[in-house]
Amino acid sequence: MRRISERVWAPGELIPGEVDLAQEFGCARATVNRALRQLAEAGLLDRRRKGGTRVARYPVRKATLDIPVTRLEIEGRGVPYRHTLLNREICCPPDSICEAMDVSQTTQLLHLPALHFADGKPFLYEDRWINTAAVPEIQDEIFSEINANEWLIEHALFSRGDIRFSAANATKKEAKILQCEAEQAIFIIDRTTWNKDQSVTSVRLAYAPGFHMRSQI
Amino acid sequence: MRRISERVWAPGELIPGEVDLAQEFGCARATVNRALRQLAEAGLLDRRRKGGTRVARYPVRKATLDIPVTRLEIEGRGVPYRHTLLNREICCPPDSICEAMDVSQTTQLLHLPALHFADGKPFLYEDRWINTAAVPEIQDEIFSEINANEWLIEHALFSRGDIRFSAANATKKEAKILQCEAEQAIFIIDRTTWNKDQSVTSVRLAYAPGFHMRSQI
Repeated sequence: MRRISERVWAPGELIPGEVDLAQEFGCARATVNRALRQLAEAGLLDRRRKGGTRVARYPVRKATLDIPVTRLEIEGRGVPYRHTLLNREICCPPDSICEAMDVSQTTQLLHLPALHFADGKPFLYEDRWINTAAVPEIQDEIFSEINANEWLIEHALFSRGDIRFSAANATKKEAKILQCEAEQAIFIIDRTTWNKDQSVTSVRLAYAPGFHMRSQI
Repeated sequence: MRRISERVWAPGELIPGEVDLAQEFGCARATVNRALRQLAEAGLLDRRRKGGTRVARYPVRKATLDIPVTRLEIEGRGVPYRHTLLNREICCPPDSICEAMDVSQTTQLLHLPALHFADGKPFLYEDRWINTAAVPEIQDEIFSEINANEWLIEHALFSRGDIRFSAANATKKEAKILQCEAEQAIFIIDRTTWNKDQSVTSVRLAYAPGFHMRSQI
């Protein structure tokens, strides 16, 4: 890392092999391999199976964002948390949700819009759709003690998720729910989770104005 | 991963030790160690030095975002790229920049606002401040062939960066530059990079409406 950032090794330059580096640093080859792999994952090295390892000419820096459970995110700020379920119905979702969850437009899904409060103020409006075929037992849950976010973490199998970050002007409905002005800019996370090839849930998270996510690169 | 997602190992449960897992899977203990470390980094396992390894009760999923060089991000979409420098001056930055870069309010910095175009349309307004004490040779560069983003990647030493994602309503000035309506919601990235304890550059990236970032969890 020091040699890359101080340009002892220049952008595009071939670096020494693992065996030579292990000898120079007096450590195991496996240690060198792990260090180089981490630098490659961070986008600072380009590794080619045949061509050796070079310093990346255009490093793609990576930022890792923590996606915590909403209640813990709020409690972690030292303020009281509560949530309220805004509605509960089984109906056909809008086209965007059918597409995101890869279900037909006649599929009935469980719609559970909810609002999370931090210190009594609206923090996050969660517009959630659930594929009951993936989690049939959810139909018996009333979500008084636990919110759908945490219920799914405890009960649903899930292997991967697509996530998308964007900005949007609050609609009139969103503004009313989040107690902000219509058209105020809000941070949006769209997330769809899958258990193998079956979609489990798709959620649009609309954060009250002022929200931001921090990370390090 | 399969045992966690299918709840063979339940949330909060202590999992077998590395030696037992290595024996069961017929592989080296180092291989098990690496797999467990990756699952812990993904937020699925809690590892305690003394208490053993447990399945995370509230998994903090992590999303990794690629922060590519802007020109390559645009060229990667298969559309032509160009950029234009909007101004060049040496002056005292606003308080928010002094704070982000940890410089005194009387420090003179190089201000290089620039606009990146994708397919002839404004894509990203980059409001950049540079600490010339960290990169004195930048004062000789005219930025006709290369933009400041790439010049810094090639010439500046940098060890770490703070990054912040948010949403904002476009100011009149931003709307004019990005050719959108004032108050339209835009995606903002604020980023400050450091070489050890010296700030190198701080930039506010304002993306034209419609921009989003995707990732997997």
